[in-house]
Amino acid sequence: MYKADIITIGDEILIGQVIDTNSAWMSAELNKLGIGVSRIISIQDNEDEILRAVDNSFNNADVILITGGLGPTSDDITKPALAKYFNTRLVFNADVFLEVSNRLSIRGLPMNEKNRHQADVPESCTVLMNKAGTAPGMLFRKDGKVIISMPGVPSEMKYLMNEHVLPLLSGSFKSGFIIHKNIMTYGIGESLLAERLENFEKELPNEIRLAYLPSFGIVKLRLTARGDDEAKLKGLIDQQVRKLYSIVAEAIYGEDEVTLEEAVGNLLLERNLTLSTAESCTGGKIASMITSIPGCSAWYNGSVVTYGNAIKIEVLGCNPETMERYGAVSEEIAREMAIGAKEVFGTSFSIGISGIAGPSGGSEEKPVGTVCIAVASPHGVVSERFRFGDNRIINISRFATTALNMVRKQIINM
Amino acid sequence: MYKADIITIGDEILIGQVIDTNSAWMSAELNKLGIGVSRIISIQDNEDEILRAVDNSFNNADVILITGGLGPTSDDITKPALAKYFNTRLVFNADVFLEVSNRLSIRGLPMNEKNRHQADVPESCTVLMNKAGTAPGMLFRKDGKVIISMPGVPSEMKYLMNEHVLPLLSGSFKSGFIIHKNIMTYGIGESLLAERLENFEKELPNEIRLAYLPSFGIVKLRLTARGDDEAKLKGLIDQQVRKLYSIVAEAIYGEDEVTLEEAVGNLLLERNLTLSTAESCTGGKIASMITSIPGCSAWYNGSVVTYGNAIKIEVLGCNPETMERYGAVSEEIAREMAIGAKEVFGTSFSIGISGIAGPSGGSEEKPVGTVCIAVASPHGVVSERFRFGDNRIINISRFATTALNMVRKQIINM
Repeated sequence: MYKADIITIGDEILIGQVIDTNSAWMSAELNKLGIGVSRIISIQDNEDEILRAVDNSFNNADVILITGGLGPTSDDITKPALAKYFNTRLVFNADVFLEVSNRLSIRGLPMNEKNRHQADVPESCTVLMNKAGTAPGMLFRKDGKVIISMPGVPSEMKYLMNEHVLPLLSGSFKSGFIIHKNIMTYGIGESLLAERLENFEKELPNEIRLAYLPSFGIVKLRLTARGDDEAKLKGLIDQQVRKLYSIVAEAIYGEDEVTLEEAVGNLLLERNLTLSTAESCTGGKIASMITSIPGCSAWYNGSVVTYGNAIKIEVLGCNPETMERYGAVSEEIAREMAIGAKEVFGTSFSIGISGIAGPSGGSEEKPVGTVCIAVASPHGVVSERFRFGDNRIINISRFATTALNMVRKQIINM
Repeated sequence: MYKADIITIGDEILIGQVIDTNSAWMSAELNKLGIGVSRIISIQDNEDEILRAVDNSFNNADVILITGGLGPTSDDITKPALAKYFNTRLVFNADVFLEVSNRLSIRGLPMNEKNRHQADVPESCTVLMNKAGTAPGMLFRKDGKVIISMPGVPSEMKYLMNEHVLPLLSGSFKSGFIIHKNIMTYGIGESLLAERLENFEKELPNEIRLAYLPSFGIVKLRLTARGDDEAKLKGLIDQQVRKLYSIVAEAIYGEDEVTLEEAVGNLLLERNLTLSTAESCTGGKIASMITSIPGCSAWYNGSVVTYGNAIKIEVLGCNPETMERYGAVSEEIAREMAIGAKEVFGTSFSIGISGIAGPSGGSEEKPVGTVCIAVASPHGVVSERFRFGDNRIINISRFATTALNMVRKQIINM
């Protein structure tokens, strides 16, 4: 099995100002090709450190992925360092120059000296065009090994990995198979899920491992199969997936990387239904999650984010007496918000949500973390009250996913 | 100045299942003591890898912090590996045994063979008692250097760092100071900024380094000062900060880790002003960014997320003729949206934003990445049209920060 080293370059990592998330993503992608990551090394923007790390990794791995230090500013020195390591010189590359100037002109920005330098690349490397930024990727080959340098900006790194690096590696370095299959669940906590899957886990075939990846109420169950017979591995995975459905069907909302909002969107699309939202405590989070999905306008009409109460009454038509009697954070108001939004946007479904995200604003009777959620559907309105923790950011996410899951359940039970 | 290496051990990191957040935290803490982190190395639970990494770091750094591989299960082999490296043997430690059995009995758990082994420690190490878990920390000294092994569980690592490691290091390895100061800028691209700061950078005192950290139009300028005289370093930093203000004042929206939305909120609060938003293409992103700030309700009233056009007319009072003549993505409609939201929410400021986030929906005249933003203020309405790239998620963020910065400029120029 081929070995890879990942080298991430950037002072910001070593002073603790930035958490290196690139390496985990790259490692997972390399795994899918059956390439094992042997080491992840983070170093400073320092020529000696870069030369030492690259040389060290060159003697350790078959594939070396480097990120960072390719920006246009003077603290970015990866490019000259690599040119030195492969003792070649920097030469002007017209294709890169055109790509950079196009990107700039689209934004109405001038081409200056610094951007001009983005077009200088080591003579002996293969340039990997970067349509996600101004710094090109660079590929070097030596003694049957490949060394690839990419920008540290996650979106640019991912673009280069998907467009150039992974296809190339799968061609020349693929060895054996590592197949991952994700089953997305919501509504059963990790430890309870683990309890219910205890025997399932015991009975897993040797080729397969199970991992629990929880985040904000969602628990991703990842099955990983390793071996040489791809067809056999796929068969084993399918078997285990069917088994999972038979054990925790009610919690499974989708497979692979589907998000809860995408799952809800797909259900709505299939049925020609539409959704709108009226958000108080989530402050547009649900809308923002939904509208990050391309094409969501086919099933999502919009949201009224009501941070003031007046607007709940004026735009959503909430009843001042209800507000008076039950307070803004109540199932009653959540229901009126949902009904109001359904009316205003003319959708088949609507979410009304009101709660206390914190850190302050809680009371004895309605502590921080309390949220009231209502879902209006063609069959009426359902509402529920929940209680989460004290962290504002986490609460907002939990509130949002809980509301989306309520909609999902309503559609499925229609 | 003393150098530290951080070694994180664990297969889960190298298959991309876990993002290493420990290293960033430890690096920031070491920095405060004036100890610079030279490298962060992540390796598998493998004896050879561990021995090689420790030996390598021993020749590179004065302080070596190791996390992970201390659990009770068979894949945790850091302890025997270290015993081998320092060629000593594992011996039973009664204090650790008592600590572990106490922790277990509190939870009503029995003492089993695996937990019993937690009490075996390398004979030559100093045990660092761990009241946050069952695996003790271990400290080794050799040739005036220290090698410290801690569990990878963040809460246990932090306990050991705060209780034992940091006090110890500040005693024997504190060397000088490292001071960081961040200046947050928006509106000038990294390369243009670098051009304008070229002389500033050249004239920086030797103790100070400048780094550019860009993300979605925001460029964080990080000044780092190293030296022995803390007061002098602070003075130098203040000097350079003042210099930065004199060069790129219009781009600076704040200092340290303040976000653009926080900066806008602070400006509004100081002046007793309020804001609302009418979002089409950003789909609630601006509202979501703002409402993640605790206490934002003091200056933010809400948003109308208009994914359908009807709602622009019904709720925001956009003119159907304007829609007809200029289209939904136009400065004219953005202006009417801003005016409408200002009206509906009764705020002093309002944002109206309409654009094409992509990936589809673009045209010759209005390509993907086009956005029209209007800001209504007590002094009237300003609007502008911008063009960004093709990536939906990035566009939504760029649209949002661009709008927030327009509000910021309006307030400042009032």
